[in-house]
Amino acid sequence: MFRLHNFFRSSASTRVRIALNIKGLDYDYRGYVLRDGETRTPAYLSRNPQGLVPVLELDDGRHLTQSLAIIEWLEETHPEPALLPSDPLGRARVRALAQMIACEIHPVNNLRVLLRLKDQFGADDEAQRAWFTHWVSITFDALESCLSNSPETGRYCHGDAPTLADLCLYAQVWNNRRFLIPLDAWPTISRVFERLDTLPAFRDGAPPSQPDAQP
Amino acid sequence: MFRLHNFFRSSASTRVRIALNIKGLDYDYRGYVLRDGETRTPAYLSRNPQGLVPVLELDDGRHLTQSLAIIEWLEETHPEPALLPSDPLGRARVRALAQMIACEIHPVNNLRVLLRLKDQFGADDEAQRAWFTHWVSITFDALESCLSNSPETGRYCHGDAPTLADLCLYAQVWNNRRFLIPLDAWPTISRVFERLDTLPAFRDGAPPSQPDAQP
Repeated sequence: MFRLHNFFRSSASTRVRIALNIKGLDYDYRGYVLRDGETRTPAYLSRNPQGLVPVLELDDGRHLTQSLAIIEWLEETHPEPALLPSDPLGRARVRALAQMIACEIHPVNNLRVLLRLKDQFGADDEAQRAWFTHWVSITFDALESCLSNSPETGRYCHGDAPTLADLCLYAQVWNNRRFLIPLDAWPTISRVFERLDTLPAFRDGAPPSQPDAQP
Repeated sequence: MFRLHNFFRSSASTRVRIALNIKGLDYDYRGYVLRDGETRTPAYLSRNPQGLVPVLELDDGRHLTQSLAIIEWLEETHPEPALLPSDPLGRARVRALAQMIACEIHPVNNLRVLLRLKDQFGADDEAQRAWFTHWVSITFDALESCLSNSPETGRYCHGDAPTLADLCLYAQVWNNRRFLIPLDAWPTISRVFERLDTLPAFRDGAPPSQPDAQP
């Protein structure tokens, strides 16, 4: 059985939890409190020298890191249900939508960046909120445009089955709630999120459903 | 023939140029000056609503965005020479190494983030340098550990042929030069870079080799 080293609120962790759920793969949940340095211990750093979550531990003791790399590995080793379309152009679109979130919003807004803003520039809660909201807004504006202008958008980001792009979208919307960012300006993103939120694989992977969840 | 909308100094652009070179694919180079807003025009935004480089334009007028998604598409449609290993665990390792750079260093350090630090926090050149150096250092420390502790590291990041991870490493080291960050603390990264820098596909994709290059 897989062992997932993760944190309930981490959006990269949320993506991997949903991928495991969609593919029907059971896993042992190990939660870490990032703010308490629980991913900076020597034992944790031996799993991932970056001290980041998530880490997927395999039966043979191997450790896989980086959420998108983990999900691509799951896709290659457990192809059904698929998280990527079968045609290369569709796969390119889904990966690009996913990376808009995973490479342009999340890295700039995660906990360690907000803490660095505080340390280096004295950013208080309000300044951190403005920073966080800025990066969400400019990328969600572009994502809304990509989704609303494409005939390839269906019930979900790409067609009528959830893909890697939906994992990232869903996790990011949960992340946005930390700063109470409303979705009103992005009707397609909002519609897709609401529909994803009815699927058990997504609900069960969401932050509040985890054993270490706190309000 | 492909048309590549890009910028000589952009490290995401550098990755795609090298991938095209390795696969022997010719392309029409279109350069844009980011600081002058040349990727914020209506014509450019119709290619990529994010206003980012690179964009790979196909013969049929389709536009592909996000460097890692573009490279995965190139890999699927032009498999040789391969930029990913053939085994899923090897692919997971290469993608994770690539994403350490593409998801943890580059997004936090690109031009628009540095400009935002200036606008929101009044960060001067020295503060921007400290910020940039911080994110390079903590991730290169972890990358050095991953590379130096693994028997899978060879002449390059993974074995003896360049992979997606090397594209990201090479482009990031060029990016570091903007803030004159020496490589002395990371001997394996340094060794891999020096060897990559002897390969024509990499040299020809490097920033100084581009038609719009400036000192």
